[in-house]
Amino acid sequence: MSHLHRLPSLTHVAVCGGTHGNEMSGIYLAKHWLNNTSELCRSTFQATPFLGNPRAIEKCVRYIGRDLNRSFIADILNSKGSDTDSYEVQRAREINQNFGPKGSSQAYEFIFDLHNTTANMGCCLIVASEHCLLTLHMCSYIQKQSKVKHCSVLLSQQNPQEETYSVCSVSKNGLAIEVGPQPQGVARADLLAQMRSIMAYALDFIELFNKGTLFPAFDIETYKVTGAVDFPRYPSGEISAVIHPDLQDKDFQPLKPGDPIFQTFSGEDILYEGEDTTYPVFINEAAYYEKKTAFLKTEKRTVSLPVLQKKF
Amino acid sequence: MSHLHRLPSLTHVAVCGGTHGNEMSGIYLAKHWLNNTSELCRSTFQATPFLGNPRAIEKCVRYIGRDLNRSFIADILNSKGSDTDSYEVQRAREINQNFGPKGSSQAYEFIFDLHNTTANMGCCLIVASEHCLLTLHMCSYIQKQSKVKHCSVLLSQQNPQEETYSVCSVSKNGLAIEVGPQPQGVARADLLAQMRSIMAYALDFIELFNKGTLFPAFDIETYKVTGAVDFPRYPSGEISAVIHPDLQDKDFQPLKPGDPIFQTFSGEDILYEGEDTTYPVFINEAAYYEKKTAFLKTEKRTVSLPVLQKKF
Repeated sequence: MSHLHRLPSLTHVAVCGGTHGNEMSGIYLAKHWLNNTSELCRSTFQATPFLGNPRAIEKCVRYIGRDLNRSFIADILNSKGSDTDSYEVQRAREINQNFGPKGSSQAYEFIFDLHNTTANMGCCLIVASEHCLLTLHMCSYIQKQSKVKHCSVLLSQQNPQEETYSVCSVSKNGLAIEVGPQPQGVARADLLAQMRSIMAYALDFIELFNKGTLFPAFDIETYKVTGAVDFPRYPSGEISAVIHPDLQDKDFQPLKPGDPIFQTFSGEDILYEGEDTTYPVFINEAAYYEKKTAFLKTEKRTVSLPVLQKKF
Repeated sequence: MSHLHRLPSLTHVAVCGGTHGNEMSGIYLAKHWLNNTSELCRSTFQATPFLGNPRAIEKCVRYIGRDLNRSFIADILNSKGSDTDSYEVQRAREINQNFGPKGSSQAYEFIFDLHNTTANMGCCLIVASEHCLLTLHMCSYIQKQSKVKHCSVLLSQQNPQEETYSVCSVSKNGLAIEVGPQPQGVARADLLAQMRSIMAYALDFIELFNKGTLFPAFDIETYKVTGAVDFPRYPSGEISAVIHPDLQDKDFQPLKPGDPIFQTFSGEDILYEGEDTTYPVFINEAAYYEKKTAFLKTEKRTVSLPVLQKKF
């Protein structure tokens, strides 16, 4: 039997919807749960729902002043407030106060953050890195339970030195659930049900863990982000090409050097010039045009996880 | 031979992209055509491309102050400007000056207006009413040429007394091309190509018409808007249900009394209580949540058109 890893039980758990105010599955679920928490209750804990960015939700936009999900950084969390702070800077400090402080022993044990993408990513489980043992065990559990749809695991941190900045980084463990494709400002019943079902399995996992279940060692296939590819652009900054029809909707599928990735408005194909096969994700995500990202590159990695059990 | 209808040739033709600043197919096409008009040239005329709402395009939002495509009304067009006018009120007057005035003999003969929807409407051709002989002849021509995708014809005016308000209403004839499903802020290569191809056939039709081609009488299947259905809502105004999975993506397909149309967040189905079969369109269009419209109802109508030829 491989080395047994023991972690403390999880009693402080939160679920955030509407970190981005136009990603509707999580917004409607969180609003529903704020009125009726029964789905978030288990015998060993009860998850606390909250709305990440209420003002952005009200306006049905991603954010008011800056992207909240890039705002949980030391510069913001550790500095004093000022009148010129954007709404999201204030909101990041509030969330950090309620569920953190980030990096401290008082921080919540787990935050779930619910997102939608316009990309064809299905049910994607976003974990910071291969070192998140508990969360990867949770992902494996979700994959096994959720038999209809395959849930891909995306490792978002490109290198361990990188400062984390997401809502999930406030707690000791975190998982972003990214369900797509769904347009901004739209709620589809099918994707809402998928997100709800993943959340239920995730809470079941915590319940089993808290009750002392031993989770065996396993290997899990992951996609680790290695970089971003921008759209081709005119000197003015305007994009000069769109995602190639052969690449559109092909998230998590292999893209080889020489494969077409863009099509210019004049009809020419632009080919992928990378050296190795990559597995693109967030292909044609609406919110990433401004971030100069047409898609993210990932590499496929199998991660081996040790046996996990609660520390008694 | 049925009665021959004669109309003057079309020399002043315009194409508008970005009436809504987050519907990207028309925006990128219009920007491309502003730099390179060759696709808009025919021997008898050259179409003028323009951007409907440049400030909304810059911000990638539907509109800044009010919906431009609801702003071409007498109250706005015939009143003097004031400092408190919203951007779209000013813009409606400018467009009316450049391509109208609406209802006058100087007005352009044709305006095309390019739109996207998040609904699964395919390539939809929106015409004001069954009285638009020339435009319906154009729709029939597009349907015959465009063999890959069926283009449905939607008649938008519910009754003849209703004041028109769209960009297309500024010119003597007009056609809105509505292509979907596409998320706001995203350009898909496949839909861009479809819109471009419809535009090419439409301009070919005008060219043939101007050259004196006789277009025979025909019957055309249309969907005439008869009303709107809102989402169920809580007393607070928040929606309490989403489009039912059985209705989602079923634009232009028959909806019968008793069929499910919504699913509440608690899981109950809400059934259609209309008296007759309807053909819903704009199902789950992102921009219509604020307009309190979950979908539009239409009735199927076959319209008979007379022979058409240019007035010599």
